[in-house]
Amino acid sequence: MSSRRNFIQQTALGLAGSVAIPLLGRATSGQPGSVESSAAASELMPVGVAGYTFAKFDTDQSIAMMKKLGAHNLSLKEIHLPLNSSDERIKTDMAKYAAAGINVYTVGVIYMKTKEAVDQAFQYAKKVGVGMIVGVPSYDVLDYSEAQVKAYDIKLAIHNHGPSDPLYPSPKDVYDRIKDKDPRVGLCIDIGHTRRAGVLPEQVVKQYRDRLFDLHIKDVTAGVESGKATEIGRGIIDFPALVKALKKIHYKGVCSIEYEKDMTDPMVGISESLGYFRGVLAAEG
Amino acid sequence: MSSRRNFIQQTALGLAGSVAIPLLGRATSGQPGSVESSAAASELMPVGVAGYTFAKFDTDQSIAMMKKLGAHNLSLKEIHLPLNSSDERIKTDMAKYAAAGINVYTVGVIYMKTKEAVDQAFQYAKKVGVGMIVGVPSYDVLDYSEAQVKAYDIKLAIHNHGPSDPLYPSPKDVYDRIKDKDPRVGLCIDIGHTRRAGVLPEQVVKQYRDRLFDLHIKDVTAGVESGKATEIGRGIIDFPALVKALKKIHYKGVCSIEYEKDMTDPMVGISESLGYFRGVLAAEG
Repeated sequence: MSSRRNFIQQTALGLAGSVAIPLLGRATSGQPGSVESSAAASELMPVGVAGYTFAKFDTDQSIAMMKKLGAHNLSLKEIHLPLNSSDERIKTDMAKYAAAGINVYTVGVIYMKTKEAVDQAFQYAKKVGVGMIVGVPSYDVLDYSEAQVKAYDIKLAIHNHGPSDPLYPSPKDVYDRIKDKDPRVGLCIDIGHTRRAGVLPEQVVKQYRDRLFDLHIKDVTAGVESGKATEIGRGIIDFPALVKALKKIHYKGVCSIEYEKDMTDPMVGISESLGYFRGVLAAEG
Repeated sequence: MSSRRNFIQQTALGLAGSVAIPLLGRATSGQPGSVESSAAASELMPVGVAGYTFAKFDTDQSIAMMKKLGAHNLSLKEIHLPLNSSDERIKTDMAKYAAAGINVYTVGVIYMKTKEAVDQAFQYAKKVGVGMIVGVPSYDVLDYSEAQVKAYDIKLAIHNHGPSDPLYPSPKDVYDRIKDKDPRVGLCIDIGHTRRAGVLPEQVVKQYRDRLFDLHIKDVTAGVESGKATEIGRGIIDFPALVKALKKIHYKGVCSIEYEKDMTDPMVGISESLGYFRGVLAAEG
C-alpha cells in the first residue's frame, strides 16, 4: 500500500521519528487485490494532517479521527503533547501513535520568541524523535535557531501566517531571511495564508523549492486578509495547479491537511478536504 | 458558479423537473471572487447524489445533508416519496427540494415487474416532473416500457446491479436488450456493480456511450461479487481513467454519488467520496 511505502520513503529521508512504527496498510483497503494505479499515484506526496486540526480534541480522539481518515502522517501540535512534557508522557504518547500506525513526522507550529524557547523546542523535538520542527522564530533568535539546527541536526521549517502576521506574512518573508542560512533551515508553506497574502501557492512552491520542507494544505474563500477557511475544493486555490507544481519540483515532503473550519466537529469537512486532495493527486499522478 | 450553470445546462437538456428552482450558487463559495478554474472544470459533469444514500433518513434530513455536501442534483428514491403518493404530497415535497435549490433530475431505481408497475412508474415520473426514470423492468415488460417511453416522452435508464442480479448484472446485459429500441431507452451504469461484475467502468462508458443517460458513482474493495462498498478513492476503481473516458465521450448527464457504507451515519464517508470525485474532475478538467 502507498502509506507503507510512504513511510519507508520518509524514514529514508530522515524525517520519521526514532519510534518503531508498525508498517500498517490503509485500514480499509489493505486486502489483496486492492492496489490500483490511482492509489499508487500519490506515493510521491504522502498526505498528512496538521495537529491543529484536532485542537478541540485530545490525543486518543485525534488518533481515532486519523484512523477513520486513513491518514498516517501527523504534524504534532503541542496542544496534544505540551512542550514541557515529561519524558514518560512523551514516551506514552509516542507509543500510542506508533500503535495506531501514525508517523509523527514533525512537531509544530512552535512559536519561539527567546533563546530559551528555541532550546525548549529543539529538546522537545529530539525527545519526540522527529527530524524537523515547524516553527516561528522571532527575527532576533533566527541566528540562534540556525545554531541549534546545526547542533541537533534537526531541520527548521518556518511557517507563514498571512497578512496579519508581523513576522512572516508570506513565504517570501521567510525565504529572504533564511536563504543564506544552513540548508536545513527552510519553509513550511501554509498555502491558505499564502493565498490570503495574495500569493499563488503553485508559484511559490516552485520559487522556493530548494528550501521547501513542509506544507499546510487548506483552502480559503478569498485571496485577501478576510478570506476564510473552507473545505478544500470549495475555495479559490487551484489544487490541480499546485499538485502539478509539486510534482514538477519532485516535492518529497508531506502534504499536511489543516482544516480550520468547524473545529468542534471537523470530520465531515476534513473528509471532503482529504478526499478532494487525494482525488487531485490521483488524477495528476 | 458551476452548479448554477450546471442547472441551466440540465434544464436545456430537458432533464430538470418542471418545478421552478431558485438559481442558487454553492452555499459556501458563492461570494464574488471565488470562481476559479478548478471549480469550473467540473461543469460538463454535474455531480449529484443517488437518493438511496439517504435511505435511513427522511426528506428534510436528506435535504439538509445535500446542502451540507453542496450537492444540487438528486436522483429521487421512492423511499422518500412513495410511488403511490398523492398529488398534494408530491407537490409539497418537490417544493421543498426547489426551495433548497435541489434539482431532482430523475427518479429511481424503480423495479417494474408488471405492466401496472410500469404504468405507475411513468405516471409518478410525470407528476414529479422529471424527464427520466432509472429503472429495472423485467424482460417481459421491456417492450411495454419502451411503449411508455414513447407515450410519455420520458427516458428510461436501466440500472445494472452486479453478479447476483438475475436480470442485468452488467451494462452489457442492459445494452444487448435495448440497443434496437427507441433511443430514449438507455443505461444508468452503476460503476460499483459493474466493477464487481469484473467489468471496467472506464471501458463500458465508452462502449455504450450512445445510450449512457445516468451514472451511479461509488467505489468497491474488489472486482468480484463479494466486493464491498467503500469510500471513493479507497477502493479499486480507477477514477482518473473513468473521468477521462467521460470527458472523451462528452458525457452530459449527472454523476450521482451513491454511498452504501455506513448508511446510518453516511456524512463523513460521502463527504470524502464527493471530495475525491470533485478533485479528480477538477484535475481532469
